[in-house]
This record gives sequence, structure tokens and C-alpha cells, in this order.
Amino acid sequence: MPPPAKIRIDLNSPVPAYRQIVDAIRVLLVTGAMVPGADLPSVRRLAMELGVHFNTVGEAYRELAAEGWLDLRHGRGATVLSRESPEPASPERLQEFHTQIRNMVAQMRAAGVPAVRIAAELRSAIESLKS
Amino acid sequence: MPPPAKIRIDLNSPVPAYRQIVDAIRVLLVTGAMVPGADLPSVRRLAMELGVHFNTVGEAYRELAAEGWLDLRHGRGATVLSRESPEPASPERLQEFHTQIRNMVAQMRAAGVPAVRIAAELRSAIESLKS
Repeated sequence: MPPPAKIRIDLNSPVPAYRQIVDAIRVLLVTGAMVPGADLPSVRRLAMELGVHFNTVGEAYRELAAEGWLDLRHGRGATVLSRESPEPASPERLQEFHTQIRNMVAQMRAAGVPAVRIAAELRSAIESLKS
Repeated sequence: MPPPAKIRIDLNSPVPAYRQIVDAIRVLLVTGAMVPGADLPSVRRLAMELGVHFNTVGEAYRELAAEGWLDLRHGRGATVLSRESPEPASPERLQEFHTQIRNMVAQMRAAGVPAVRIAAELRSAIESLKS
């Protein structure tokens, strides 16, 4: 088994640690960097590595299990499930994502990120979809 | 003065109403749909239109004022300020936005949005930057 892909979080970020862990693992799952059958580190080990309380990691694993990504094994960790293709997103969900993208672009512009730089980030995200 | 650009929120969304109001107005400000000198509706009027408590709108206006976008007038509403170009975003901030974009794309994929649809949304956001 290859060593598990690296999960990184920023303890100084205003984004809660558990949310960062969920998001980071979801990126690894969606991009195929973590494949079905792979084992995640145990809650306690990952908590120690990241410098967070083990409940924080536990909460993150439970959220991903609720989304259908992980099989949790009591006291031992979690295994990546072979997830069925999700149902197509509803029109409401698509609208939400549309709004979310527009909000994020506005935040970036408001924060002083030049338009060319924003466009480059978005283009690189499009590229990453092709893999 | 042209009629103020429309602010819409979704009361069924899990995103707090005040956050939706901030985000919606920021999009209007950044895209130039609301220009310096323009008056926003009074807190009470917008609250009535949107069907939220006036404190919710007040909180949103105060957040935008703290960001330098609005001049709040006691009891009367708010005026759009001519905002200095913001300081260039820090490398940390750019990294945060990079992560945010990747997380959002992963969420969309996990929610069953086809890659071509995500790419189309991102491309349309790039287009909107050119205006």
C-alpha cells in the first residue's frame, strides 16, 4: 500500500480545523489521490500529526462517513469506500455553487487579488478537472 | 439615481442570511453594479424586503463598512464609498484562495456535478472578470 497522501491544515486559519480536515481529505478522494480500499491513519495518529484534539479528527471522519466516503472501524481508523457515483446535483445545488463561485471571485477582488491572477487560479482549477 | 441593484437571498439556505447579504452586496460593489455615491436602502427597508430581522441587515452593513465599502449614516442607511484600491493580497491570502477554489471544486464533484459543468461555471466566472 502506498503511503497515505499528505493532509495539511493551517492552525492559524479562521476555518475550523475539522472543516479543513474534511475539505483536505475530500480533495484527495475526489482527485483519486486516495482510492477505495486505502486505509486512513487512525484518529489518534492523525490528531497527533496535525496537532489537534482527537475529537476534531473523529468529527471530520464521521462527516466523511456520512457523505458515503469512509467506512469507520471502531478504534482503528477508516477505510475509503468505493462510492457509487452520486446522484446528479439538483438545480438548486447548481445555483448554490454558481453563487459560491461568484462570491469567492468578489472576495478575491475585494482582497486585492488582480483579475489576471484570479483568472489564472480558475484556469488551473479547470486544468485539474481534466486529470 | 438608478434604482438600486437587486439583492436576493435564500431563506432556506444553510448560509446565514447576514452572510448572504454581505456576499450579494460585495458582488454588486466589486462588479461596479453599485458605484461610489450610490445609496443603499435603509436597514429597515431592506430587512422588510428580504423578510429578515433588521439587525441582520445592520450586521451585514457594518461588516461591509468595516471592509471600507460603506459609509453608514445613523438611522438612515448607507452610501457606497469610493474605495481605495486594496493593498495587494498577501501570499498567505493567495494560498487560502487557492485552497478555497480546490475545496469548492471537490465539493461540486462530490455533489455529482459533472466535470464539464464545473469547467463551464469556472469559465463563465473568468469571462465575468473581463467586464
